[in-house]
Amino acid sequence: MMLLPRISRRKHAFMLQYMRANSIRLSSTAHSSTNNQIESNVQDSFTRRSKFWIPTGGITATENEDAHAKLIRAGYLRQSHAGIFHMLPLGHRVLEKLERLIDKYMHQLGASKVSLSSISSQALWQQTNRLEGYGPELFRLTDRKDVPYLLAPTHEEEITTLVSKTVKSYKSLPLRLFQISRKYRDEIRPRQGVLRSREFLMKDLYTFDYSIQSALSTYEQVRAAYSRLFNELKLPYLVAEASSGDIGGDLSHEYHLPTPIGEDNVISCNSCDYVANEELATTRLGPLEDTAPSPDSGDVPPANVWRGISKDRSTLINVWYPASFSDNYINTYAIKLVLPELDASLNNPIQYWSSSEPRRHVHLVNIVDYRLGSPFSNTLKTNSNPEVLLPSDTNIDLSTITTEYVVSTRDGEPLNLLRIQDGDNCPRCSSGKLKVQKAVELGHTFHLGTRYSDPLEAHVQVPSNLIEDKAVSNSTSEMKTVSMQMGCHGIGVSRIIGAVADHLADEKGLNWPRAIAPFEVVVVPGKGLENDGVIVSEYLANSQGSRPLDLLLDDRPESLPWKMRDADLVGYPIIVILGRGWSTDRLCEVQCRRLSSVSHILLEDLPMYINHLLTQL
Amino acid sequence: MMLLPRISRRKHAFMLQYMRANSIRLSSTAHSSTNNQIESNVQDSFTRRSKFWIPTGGITATENEDAHAKLIRAGYLRQSHAGIFHMLPLGHRVLEKLERLIDKYMHQLGASKVSLSSISSQALWQQTNRLEGYGPELFRLTDRKDVPYLLAPTHEEEITTLVSKTVKSYKSLPLRLFQISRKYRDEIRPRQGVLRSREFLMKDLYTFDYSIQSALSTYEQVRAAYSRLFNELKLPYLVAEASSGDIGGDLSHEYHLPTPIGEDNVISCNSCDYVANEELATTRLGPLEDTAPSPDSGDVPPANVWRGISKDRSTLINVWYPASFSDNYINTYAIKLVLPELDASLNNPIQYWSSSEPRRHVHLVNIVDYRLGSPFSNTLKTNSNPEVLLPSDTNIDLSTITTEYVVSTRDGEPLNLLRIQDGDNCPRCSSGKLKVQKAVELGHTFHLGTRYSDPLEAHVQVPSNLIEDKAVSNSTSEMKTVSMQMGCHGIGVSRIIGAVADHLADEKGLNWPRAIAPFEVVVVPGKGLENDGVIVSEYLANSQGSRPLDLLLDDRPESLPWKMRDADLVGYPIIVILGRGWSTDRLCEVQCRRLSSVSHILLEDLPMYINHLLTQL
Repeated sequence: MMLLPRISRRKHAFMLQYMRANSIRLSSTAHSSTNNQIESNVQDSFTRRSKFWIPTGGITATENEDAHAKLIRAGYLRQSHAGIFHMLPLGHRVLEKLERLIDKYMHQLGASKVSLSSISSQALWQQTNRLEGYGPELFRLTDRKDVPYLLAPTHEEEITTLVSKTVKSYKSLPLRLFQISRKYRDEIRPRQGVLRSREFLMKDLYTFDYSIQSALSTYEQVRAAYSRLFNELKLPYLVAEASSGDIGGDLSHEYHLPTPIGEDNVISCNSCDYVANEELATTRLGPLEDTAPSPDSGDVPPANVWRGISKDRSTLINVWYPASFSDNYINTYAIKLVLPELDASLNNPIQYWSSSEPRRHVHLVNIVDYRLGSPFSNTLKTNSNPEVLLPSDTNIDLSTITTEYVVSTRDGEPLNLLRIQDGDNCPRCSSGKLKVQKAVELGHTFHLGTRYSDPLEAHVQVPSNLIEDKAVSNSTSEMKTVSMQMGCHGIGVSRIIGAVADHLADEKGLNWPRAIAPFEVVVVPGKGLENDGVIVSEYLANSQGSRPLDLLLDDRPESLPWKMRDADLVGYPIIVILGRGWSTDRLCEVQCRRLSSVSHILLEDLPMYINHLLTQL
Repeated sequence: MMLLPRISRRKHAFMLQYMRANSIRLSSTAHSSTNNQIESNVQDSFTRRSKFWIPTGGITATENEDAHAKLIRAGYLRQSHAGIFHMLPLGHRVLEKLERLIDKYMHQLGASKVSLSSISSQALWQQTNRLEGYGPELFRLTDRKDVPYLLAPTHEEEITTLVSKTVKSYKSLPLRLFQISRKYRDEIRPRQGVLRSREFLMKDLYTFDYSIQSALSTYEQVRAAYSRLFNELKLPYLVAEASSGDIGGDLSHEYHLPTPIGEDNVISCNSCDYVANEELATTRLGPLEDTAPSPDSGDVPPANVWRGISKDRSTLINVWYPASFSDNYINTYAIKLVLPELDASLNNPIQYWSSSEPRRHVHLVNIVDYRLGSPFSNTLKTNSNPEVLLPSDTNIDLSTITTEYVVSTRDGEPLNLLRIQDGDNCPRCSSGKLKVQKAVELGHTFHLGTRYSDPLEAHVQVPSNLIEDKAVSNSTSEMKTVSMQMGCHGIGVSRIIGAVADHLADEKGLNWPRAIAPFEVVVVPGKGLENDGVIVSEYLANSQGSRPLDLLLDDRPESLPWKMRDADLVGYPIIVILGRGWSTDRLCEVQCRRLSSVSHILLEDLPMYINHLLTQL
């Protein structure tokens, strides 16, 4: 019983001393949100909730509310038009933190920041053959003189043109330029808020080298910078191989955050570091499953058929797979590896095929999953009749069309036409099992080679001995003109908000990694303790730590439970509550929902304790 | 002779001590721009020129090169399309400094930062009747579903809609929201680079109050914040009254920077604080000039006539003024005050007038400048024949048209129809003379009233005693629904670059106020002194000043004179040169072109000396 008053007296003396040292007058710090004049308060080293606009209230939580709905209810953003959003102060602050985080790692990489125009010209995009490729996803517009423009979804054309006009010598390379700016894509179905919006914020870094070797080194440096950057978010991101890794082709990696609303499937091994996106993922084919007969037994297993059609509509594709699976398991990427002409986008492809003219060029390809075994393939080839190969109501004479059968790859490997499942074998290690996770792509790295520098003539002069493999003995090397080796490396800035919100949200509300939280700490004083809130906030914001705390004081004259629920919804990493414990014992209640931690801490211990928590968030 | 070696030894010891304390190894700090790998150098607390992309060279200075050409030659920006610009790293850095400067003063004002979508809908702009008003200046586009959108040149419609949906009570007011974002205007003649471009960066602050009284207070607070902000640029800006100051109308001020390429004329008094834009400026009419006969003498002075036409083409307007002036002196704003229907945009108006039908509604108005005196007016009225009133080749019968004469305002005041001239009398003080300056508008403040809150129904509930003039005695006041009183307050962020560049440029190159310079200081070491450059830069960047210096080290292996010319062109406020004085006496040469100052300073005195210079820049 003696302890508490003693602490209380000590704290009181400490606070008075602190207040005197910092010229804090209790009378001048009282604040009420019913005060209709916002006063200039230059001295505050923290933000007052009463001066920071967060529209809350008026929106009721729905059942099974998703993270996007929470972002709206908590006041981070609002939809202005279909798939287009206004960022409110909370959302804007997260964007600003993200931008500074990205700036830091881009500058470490030696990249300079630019700001390219959002308006690009259709003529330029025609030079790279992308105007048609993007099709209706491009927002197009014309000016008053009918010059055709577009709102750029990405800036390869513009930056390559800019660099080609200014860089002429290999001595100016490597060059690394990045920007963080609004991009535009007229999505056919914008959805899930900022995860797939039509106006979005993106970081795009473009790299320029004079040789493939140097470009590879650049690529690895960018990957390392991306790892450091995503590590600082302290989230379990996945780096997926997104292509064959053949540098002549398109070396590429994707950075994913696993979350149930993700539109991508990322495959990872539970034993080694194998991670790949679904398009690229493979599995080591094990023995056939128990339910399927042995391939050599001679029995013909029951099968389903899924149908696709070629892009030119001349070829119908029957995909045969075990009847124990359904259409949802079909891996169209795997089919395309064998039949690149597949158009998998049509629901009832046969109607397009049967109407194609002239008939003499009509084909039917049967492609068989390895699980069905050779007896099935053999039966299909020898015994099949029209009723088996085509729907019974199809009025097509099989004798008028060419029929083919594909049961293995060109290299003779068996065909796995079903999507990777949880528990499939890792293709890289001997013991690992694969796991399939829904994920959101946060960023990607991509080696472009000369895809843009060739058509846009971004050339540099290089001494030939620097780019040729063979050792050149003579010191005076001839100059050669080469196209620059480029890379492009994106980060979906606004979509990170949606992905992280979904990844960390719980039933109480949102939650944020320290690095991108709108504020690191909120101080929530109970009713009548508003002045104490100012003192504690001022003390915390000025405490000598590694860097100043980014702090919000909830100075609204509302009840403590109401303000605590609001703080939970907004998702500040750390909540400091001045409640009963403060009034009686000068103890601050420190809550951290992500670490499931609640502690009661003395004011002078608070800075160190909060820093300790923040290093884990 | 003894002094120099002594200083040199002392400096040497000092530098070694500094280097040891900061673990600087000479061997590791050498840098060459022919080194083709950019190394990660996280520790630098300054920027190396070799890692910061400034494309220089390849552009030759032209005779009478304007500031825009200098911005391009120095590597700040490049044009991507007509009137559309890419910001390169130097230009982007100036924009970033401007953005932080603006943020600071907006936060002091209690404003929260948002980020509204650049795409707005035409339907919304129809509600406020602005879709037609803006006409071809709006970039319009439709999405894949043919929904009509536009690229917003300003955001009154969007922000009013946003606020109307979220703010319902006077207790949420005053509300102040700002953003810094790209705006779009399809200028008919984009020119002078970023001064009048079609894509530009603008700060727009919107204020919301529940009463005119509160809105007035907000307006004054914004004005004060603008003054503090522009003061920090340390440039001689002018604040011009841009309307009558009638709060029921549209209270407005403009912030101008005088510069010869400005498209606005700002009138200011050399004695009192009277400043007005040309549209609003008036003069106290003095006695008639010596060259003109006395108005009462009876002589008819020689006169010129300038012709305009009414918007509906029915009325020809003859403006009579002394022959000692020319058409360039005609003040169309002054004419519009008397004849608001004037369309002053046509070169040869009479051809439009004479072809107008039916003839019976055709009018001719003669309006006479006071300098011509009453004898002229009387002669015109009584003796005039068609050859005087109309060009001799006009085939119009004067008897078929109505002819009017205007010689004074409705209040009987004499008519001054000529533009304000240098030396005209100040209308406010008794002794002041007016000065006319070309200027660029950097920003404006504008009281909107309910111009947008009415049509977009941005209403709040207010207790009637808070908005009614009469004192209400009963304490329980009835709630009333009122439209919010709004203000909009812009700053042309990207155009400030162009205006300041022009204002401060000289024949050597650009120059920047400290607050928005891409770097505050550049350190330029001579050949062979690259390592010393690193040491001096590290020392300066870490010196204990009011805040860390923002410093660039020009570490390129070029000659000292070449690098100095380059530094002059870029326009760093302060240039620190390590040349012969450094090699012999360890003295840094500090150049400040704006203050016409060159000094030789010891390293340990350098931080304080530079801070002293910077406070003046």
